[in-house]
Amino acid sequence: MKVTKRKTAQHRAALVRAAARLFRGRGIDGVGVAEIGKAAGLTHGALYAQFPSKGALAAEALRQGLDRSIAYLTAPKHNHRPTLRDYLNRYLSRSLRDNLADGCPMAASASEIARQDALVSARFSEGFERTVDAVQAALGPSNSTASERRRARAIVAAMIGGVAVSRAVLKARPRLADDILTAVREVVGEVGGATTR
Amino acid sequence: MKVTKRKTAQHRAALVRAAARLFRGRGIDGVGVAEIGKAAGLTHGALYAQFPSKGALAAEALRQGLDRSIAYLTAPKHNHRPTLRDYLNRYLSRSLRDNLADGCPMAASASEIARQDALVSARFSEGFERTVDAVQAALGPSNSTASERRRARAIVAAMIGGVAVSRAVLKARPRLADDILTAVREVVGEVGGATTR
Repeated sequence: MKVTKRKTAQHRAALVRAAARLFRGRGIDGVGVAEIGKAAGLTHGALYAQFPSKGALAAEALRQGLDRSIAYLTAPKHNHRPTLRDYLNRYLSRSLRDNLADGCPMAASASEIARQDALVSARFSEGFERTVDAVQAALGPSNSTASERRRARAIVAAMIGGVAVSRAVLKARPRLADDILTAVREVVGEVGGATTR
Repeated sequence: MKVTKRKTAQHRAALVRAAARLFRGRGIDGVGVAEIGKAAGLTHGALYAQFPSKGALAAEALRQGLDRSIAYLTAPKHNHRPTLRDYLNRYLSRSLRDNLADGCPMAASASEIARQDALVSARFSEGFERTVDAVQAALGPSNSTASERRRARAIVAAMIGGVAVSRAVLKARPRLADDILTAVREVVGEVGGATTR
């Protein structure tokens, strides 16, 4: 049976969509390959024809999720490039924290990536460094004596940690969860030389 | 069949040990309850007699892991209370990053906790705030205008994020992984008013 090019592309897109949704909701380790195929309406064979391993599928889902979240983060505001303050307000927001499905896959999966294979680590690294590029370009003057690259890397690590920790405490301590977002926005804004508001 | 008190305590300890090891290695979502019982050498019934749910077991494993890692972090150095620099050097070290089994469970599981129940979130919140207490007590003067509590919370979120992100990029970009640790130590040390070295 011949599968057309178009059909193949559709299968691929359906698999990546299903994988991204299931990984975010239940964790990369919590979902099996067979289940992803089923959720996408495909047979095991059709899945393996597209992705030789769960790792390859996870890497592709991560790449697409990063593209989406970086596009959201860096979207122009009133036709201007966003400021560092915009980045912090967008990334460390309650609405993004409460919306696991559309949020940044680095914050959603940070502590799970270490258990995946090198291809997934490579995709994560690219997403991290692209986000660092954007933050570095938006840095203002500050009292820090660290290099701009280090400053930007520390800021992005704090942004990812801030969202992950805020989500982790949310069910038990919602007010603490909000204060963590505020604290990281405030302190990281100072480090990055962000203008107020 | 009567199970003695001592036996019960042994079962409990064996279960928590097995759970903590399996959760760290494969993720909370990646391990089933039956498997934990088997790894601890206990029947399903013995497991449920101790912990009514996987959540209850995960919460207890998290609590014990936090006790251990906070004790390590805050252990006296040459009979003195550790400085903020000591905290940063201990937490954001290559050896701790490369040793998932003995490291801080907040960094090992941050992004997974949001998917667990409120009891697990409560244990995570306690561990976070206890770590914040220690960091806050060690703060020195800095240019930040944020309150000391917020400064300490932002610092601990950055420490957790720094370790998680460093682990995530390690397989693909080991030098970047090291630089992330250095960047967070350097920048967060400035924010916290840590003395150099």
